[in-house]
Amino acid sequence: MEQYVIGIDVGGTNVKLGIVSAGKAISRASFSTQEFIETPQALIEAIVKAVQSHLRGRNVDPKRVAGVGIGLPGLVDVERGLVRLLPNIPGWRDVPLKKIMEKKLGFRVQLENDVNMITLGEWQYGAGRGFKDLICMTLGTGVGAGLVLNNAIYRGPGFAAGEIGHVPLSEHGPDCGCGGHGCFERYVGNKTLQKKAAKMFKDKDITLEDVYRRALDGKHRALKFWEETGEAVGHGLIGPINMLNPEAVIIGGGVARSFEFIAPAIRRVITDRAMKTQAAMVRLIKARLDDDAGLIGAKVLVQNEER
Amino acid sequence: MEQYVIGIDVGGTNVKLGIVSAGKAISRASFSTQEFIETPQALIEAIVKAVQSHLRGRNVDPKRVAGVGIGLPGLVDVERGLVRLLPNIPGWRDVPLKKIMEKKLGFRVQLENDVNMITLGEWQYGAGRGFKDLICMTLGTGVGAGLVLNNAIYRGPGFAAGEIGHVPLSEHGPDCGCGGHGCFERYVGNKTLQKKAAKMFKDKDITLEDVYRRALDGKHRALKFWEETGEAVGHGLIGPINMLNPEAVIIGGGVARSFEFIAPAIRRVITDRAMKTQAAMVRLIKARLDDDAGLIGAKVLVQNEER
Repeated sequence: MEQYVIGIDVGGTNVKLGIVSAGKAISRASFSTQEFIETPQALIEAIVKAVQSHLRGRNVDPKRVAGVGIGLPGLVDVERGLVRLLPNIPGWRDVPLKKIMEKKLGFRVQLENDVNMITLGEWQYGAGRGFKDLICMTLGTGVGAGLVLNNAIYRGPGFAAGEIGHVPLSEHGPDCGCGGHGCFERYVGNKTLQKKAAKMFKDKDITLEDVYRRALDGKHRALKFWEETGEAVGHGLIGPINMLNPEAVIIGGGVARSFEFIAPAIRRVITDRAMKTQAAMVRLIKARLDDDAGLIGAKVLVQNEER
Repeated sequence: MEQYVIGIDVGGTNVKLGIVSAGKAISRASFSTQEFIETPQALIEAIVKAVQSHLRGRNVDPKRVAGVGIGLPGLVDVERGLVRLLPNIPGWRDVPLKKIMEKKLGFRVQLENDVNMITLGEWQYGAGRGFKDLICMTLGTGVGAGLVLNNAIYRGPGFAAGEIGHVPLSEHGPDCGCGGHGCFERYVGNKTLQKKAAKMFKDKDITLEDVYRRALDGKHRALKFWEETGEAVGHGLIGPINMLNPEAVIIGGGVARSFEFIAPAIRRVITDRAMKTQAAMVRLIKARLDDDAGLIGAKVLVQNEER
């Protein structure tokens, strides 16, 4: 009998949850994080209630639930089941979430960093299938990456690896909230892209979604916007590609919607500027699981723990 | 009975070889590469003769030789035993060196990239003992690194990982031979440092060794030279440290002789500019095995193959 995994993807804006079976999300629910942001306890209670009502609403037999995977936007000690720090959700510091959730839900729980959870999903069930070494990058407000190296997720000894958005591209570049200067995220993060779009289109309310649609319509300026964005993404990828020699770079996050418009420029910059061996073998692939990547990653997480 | 491993470190200038026992080089020999550079065959013959005469001269019983590890300055397909390309030694393209050497020497042979071989040595017997994730960087004419990730050397699928010297630090920086711009190596490679020293000390013949000795004597300008070098090294390390969250960065190669003069500035830049978690946990350590690192790495290579 196919087992279910419950996936929970905690974001600064929404908490998404769903039931995953056979590598597919078969049901989904979500609620706004902001209402419950005052204390970790409030958010934990909201998640527990949402999971319980979701299971009841679908008449899920708890015996068929193999476990729960929770992705969180910050520093997660996967081994100890501890949320070390969530930069964008106040109050979360060293919260033993695994233990708390196991007690409240009655299922086995695994925690993971959200980008790593997406990476696990894309690697096992999405764009990364069959690759042994890859970078799975998410382009959004934040720019992060999960690393699969030697056929395993690489978290680093402090669970902080993958911070591709904070690889500096210029010593004298703009200050970054991380303490660095000229970080990759400062060039291709959504805030920067939105400001650039506002200026380029002389419309302070224009969204990246709008610019995407204009590119679909073949508008020259929108195509140029995405081409320049692709060039910037390419420049930021050279260092990680030269260092890690990955077989693939998977591009996800909101900006990946415009993959067709940014990919040729990314590819051109990599071909021109990355080292020959690395450039020749790296494939550039659009993420495939979209919003379900985290939920499906939860399944991989729970499976891995079973072995 | 303790087994011997024969280590061979092929460089553009010298070929070094030696017998390693119990994690120590117990004998060494070397010859100039340049004399035998015309064809791969000539260099191979010279290496074979040097190994054979070295073993004879020491009355080594071939039965006690567990194997041979050969480090090469270029792209090495470790699995197929193939030297793909040596950028600084002409004619080496897809040379099946493992097979050739096994036939000529009568021992089992393992090939490895030279920087990875040094990394294996430092990791198992030198400055990197006990670490599960580290970057072992060599600062010389070239700037390279070996990566130990999740307790294993990480070579990348094309055996090209670790090119820390070709992480770009500025999109508009000086051209690099690799095809990139503003590569880390262009800021801290020996050629750049020597030019800078010549200018700073108004002496075109000054060597980095001279500047090191002046720093030992407490000369202000020499101390400043190394401090600025340390700052440049620190800037280049931020990206790799943020991406990989290593427990340690080991610094080897010629410039590491001045470790005491560069380390405080490297540390300061990392503390100021790298991400907090990564900066707090990374240790900065001087390589410990010096010229023997490659030979001792050969032992690790042959041992690993036995298991």
